[in-house]
Amino acid sequence: MKWHIKGGLFVLWVCWLALASAAFAASRNYVVQGDIVYTPACGEAKILPQGYLVVKEGKVQGAYDKLPKDYEGWKKQDCRGKLILPGFCDLHVHAAQYRQIGLGMDEALLEWLEKYTFPEERKFSDTAYAERVYGDFAAELAKCGTTRSAVYGTIHRQGAEILARKLTERGLGAYVGKVNMDRNAPDYLCETSAGSLAETERFVKAPVWTDLVRPILTPRFAPSVTPELLQDLGALAKRENLPVQTHLSENKAEIQWVAELFPKIREYPKVYEHFGLYGDTPTLMAHCIHMSEAQIKEMVSRGVYPVFCPESNLNLTSGIMPVRKFLQAGAKVALGSDVGAGHDLFMPHVIVRAIQVSKVRAMDYPEEKALTLPEAFYLATKGGGSFFGKVGSFEPDYDADFLVVKTPKALAERSVQERWQHFIYHGTPEDITARYVAGKQLRLP
Amino acid sequence: MKWHIKGGLFVLWVCWLALASAAFAASRNYVVQGDIVYTPACGEAKILPQGYLVVKEGKVQGAYDKLPKDYEGWKKQDCRGKLILPGFCDLHVHAAQYRQIGLGMDEALLEWLEKYTFPEERKFSDTAYAERVYGDFAAELAKCGTTRSAVYGTIHRQGAEILARKLTERGLGAYVGKVNMDRNAPDYLCETSAGSLAETERFVKAPVWTDLVRPILTPRFAPSVTPELLQDLGALAKRENLPVQTHLSENKAEIQWVAELFPKIREYPKVYEHFGLYGDTPTLMAHCIHMSEAQIKEMVSRGVYPVFCPESNLNLTSGIMPVRKFLQAGAKVALGSDVGAGHDLFMPHVIVRAIQVSKVRAMDYPEEKALTLPEAFYLATKGGGSFFGKVGSFEPDYDADFLVVKTPKALAERSVQERWQHFIYHGTPEDITARYVAGKQLRLP
Repeated sequence: MKWHIKGGLFVLWVCWLALASAAFAASRNYVVQGDIVYTPACGEAKILPQGYLVVKEGKVQGAYDKLPKDYEGWKKQDCRGKLILPGFCDLHVHAAQYRQIGLGMDEALLEWLEKYTFPEERKFSDTAYAERVYGDFAAELAKCGTTRSAVYGTIHRQGAEILARKLTERGLGAYVGKVNMDRNAPDYLCETSAGSLAETERFVKAPVWTDLVRPILTPRFAPSVTPELLQDLGALAKRENLPVQTHLSENKAEIQWVAELFPKIREYPKVYEHFGLYGDTPTLMAHCIHMSEAQIKEMVSRGVYPVFCPESNLNLTSGIMPVRKFLQAGAKVALGSDVGAGHDLFMPHVIVRAIQVSKVRAMDYPEEKALTLPEAFYLATKGGGSFFGKVGSFEPDYDADFLVVKTPKALAERSVQERWQHFIYHGTPEDITARYVAGKQLRLP
Repeated sequence: MKWHIKGGLFVLWVCWLALASAAFAASRNYVVQGDIVYTPACGEAKILPQGYLVVKEGKVQGAYDKLPKDYEGWKKQDCRGKLILPGFCDLHVHAAQYRQIGLGMDEALLEWLEKYTFPEERKFSDTAYAERVYGDFAAELAKCGTTRSAVYGTIHRQGAEILARKLTERGLGAYVGKVNMDRNAPDYLCETSAGSLAETERFVKAPVWTDLVRPILTPRFAPSVTPELLQDLGALAKRENLPVQTHLSENKAEIQWVAELFPKIREYPKVYEHFGLYGDTPTLMAHCIHMSEAQIKEMVSRGVYPVFCPESNLNLTSGIMPVRKFLQAGAKVALGSDVGAGHDLFMPHVIVRAIQVSKVRAMDYPEEKALTLPEAFYLATKGGGSFFGKVGSFEPDYDADFLVVKTPKALAERSVQERWQHFIYHGTPEDITARYVAGKQLRLP
């Protein structure tokens, strides 16, 4: 009798499993109808008024003017009158600087680091503090519609693991880095070389990684990492096939400093190259403001991503990245908020700032034509998204990362293109009514 | 018997009047306790943590560290933990372009005007449309904490009167202009010279003006107004002692055009000067991007306000106003959002952009030091406010225009100065919990 009951329960359990997974699969297959805008190529806005986005098991099946017959029976979400946009990709952001947004922006870089950034980063040795701030940070990213990001933690391994967990809990996609610093940092943020490597090795093996949230090696920048540690990190990248993110050529004093610290190599990008941290695995280089034509060409040939951070270009008076030159050279340019040197996580603000600072360059250098909205939007979606795989577009087989965005009533009669422009220039996170990553809707707090 | 009743009613009515006005006077006298920040001089931030702002009949009595005994019995508003800031002053904004914010910003200036601005302004011949859009505009200004503004309507007198009424209904202070254009405008926006003058004369006598909302003469800019009409407007300004607002030296092609249109005068500011529209009465000149040292000096000596519109400097690629030069010359600089060429009414965004574009200038011209936050904040409060009288500061006898601003919980432990920085760089209109103009709280929709 006992066995009968157990056997019955087992059968029930199997049935339940089958039903549940069928339901799950079904919920992963659906059609969204709305005003679709995306940029399959840099500068090319594809606009489908009242179009159909078909999602199958988390992937885009296609974006259509008219729903193909095959999908007619599928579950439909009616978002007519709303915009359907790819989620935003922020390829350079310091999560640990979230609480210092906007503070001390009148200070010069070094004073700003000493008065604000380093004391703030120190606090992340406290895991309770990390829980709190990283939880807020992940919630804010989701609210802002940033579905993918490349994020810096601090030197603290446990904190960075908490950051990874918080992003996962929120349903976001990200690369997360534990920062390395074993010289030229305040005592309280300076690791031993061996300790930094050991902690990084533990970090990349930590039980926090998922398909969506993955580790990335994060030497802060060449001046704060010894050649020995750079060497070890390069070897680790190669051995474990890990991507890399760091800073490059942000200001002239920094470039000079690197030349002095690495007298045999001297050239800043060559330093990373020398240690196997420059395109041997997928690589993000933030800023890239002051680079020669030859350096740009070399960067392109190595497939390294320059990350354009226009807001921090302005706030830190570090110069303006010549984004048009990179695009003309064929570089895979991404956009970054650079919070906290940038003061805003909301990527539409970063898109507008990218256009504006490119206009500033165009005033001085007319041959460097200003970015258009379809170009800057591409950088913030498919451009940066390509670092994660097939992300940031609505072409078939892309991860179904998308946002549903409402339009103010007064603009309801405007064209889809104009309502898209209005959202980017004047929208707020509150205009986003839903966010999806790989087909799955995000929970907001 | 009848007379007894009437007499009794009369006495009751007098008593009610006396009580009501006493209650009103009392409600105009109060103390606000909170974290006070204001800038009595350009660059000087006065910070009073848990200070007291004393308001008497709509005027600031004083801002104090410790409440003087005289006011101890006064009604007290407890805003501890919140910031108390002067209301913002936006000295250049096109109300009629409110619905085209952010549209077509990839276009060149002329195409943008033809495709977006002129067709939009045309709609304001319809008073129902004006009611709707100007109502939304005034509500948005109030929400954003812009307590005083200098606003452009369109050429349509009735529309501009509606704009004045909407601002009054919202409790805001403003100068409102009916635009003049009698040449070089699309047919549907081009007035006859006589008609334009006659309508302007009706406009300034319309029964819509109050202590807070007043008319300002608004020839659009020299190229779109004939010499005859400029002459008449100058005479009208003098006769009725009316202030003037217009555009000056925004881009080089425009400056060249003015030289051709006024071959005997040639120099752009001299054109306005010639017709009595350049400091004979209080005068606002938007942009002033390309001006010689001599022109700046002359402008200062005539007491004309240059209005710095950093967001539109960037969006229209018209150049960057050398704000430091104007300040060094002693100019009364104000800030403007320049919506719709600017894309944001929220003045903290304009303050940040002013700082950022001044940093761009400082990269190229190190002698032109970048604006600090206390400087840019001054321009957006007391600097622009001085155009309205004693407005924009918490010194005695200033109009009690102020905002109450909340701080995110996570920043509660930060200093008042840091919380102020955070609001300007990262705040939103939703952080403003109350707005007052001349001591009176604004209603939001």
